[in-house]
Amino acid sequence: MHRNMSDLEEGMVTIIKVFHKYSGHKCKLKKAELKALINNEMSQFIMVKNETLDKLVADLDQNGDLEIDFKEFITLIAMVTSACSELFQTT
Amino acid sequence: MHRNMSDLEEGMVTIIKVFHKYSGHKCKLKKAELKALINNEMSQFIMVKNETLDKLVADLDQNGDLEIDFKEFITLIAMVTSACSELFQTT
Repeated sequence: MHRNMSDLEEGMVTIIKVFHKYSGHKCKLKKAELKALINNEMSQFIMVKNETLDKLVADLDQNGDLEIDFKEFITLIAMVTSACSELFQTT
Repeated sequence: MHRNMSDLEEGMVTIIKVFHKYSGHKCKLKKAELKALINNEMSQFIMVKNETLDKLVADLDQNGDLEIDFKEFITLIAMVTSACSELFQTT
């Protein structure tokens, strides 16, 4: 995107873009939008069923508005990436 | 990399790879390694001087071992990405 961006920076921008693709202008993910994002964009890493999704939203939703804002979403990314990183370390 | 990975997943893997490139097999970043990572890989997004670096390491280093493990590093990525996301929202 930006000619001088590193792979890491492009990765961070990708996280932002994917969030906004699903959140739209309201900049928050409803439960169904989070589910679509996870199932479409993170299916190699995690899978969520409806009952897990309820618990996940409750865990992530720190301000209790029943939607996931970007700070709450990046917490999920951090958790999943961190879990994946542990797998990478064992190889 | 993996033929079925989404852009988001590739972004997450990039974060893991960049961390390990600088941490080596010990899987922790010393202060100088964190500085090199930030200055080489995140220079479009943040800049750290030596005095800021001390404070940053102290802030990130939750377990007090004076090194930054992956969970502490992903917190930095989350903070910077979250700050960048706010800039994106204003455009």
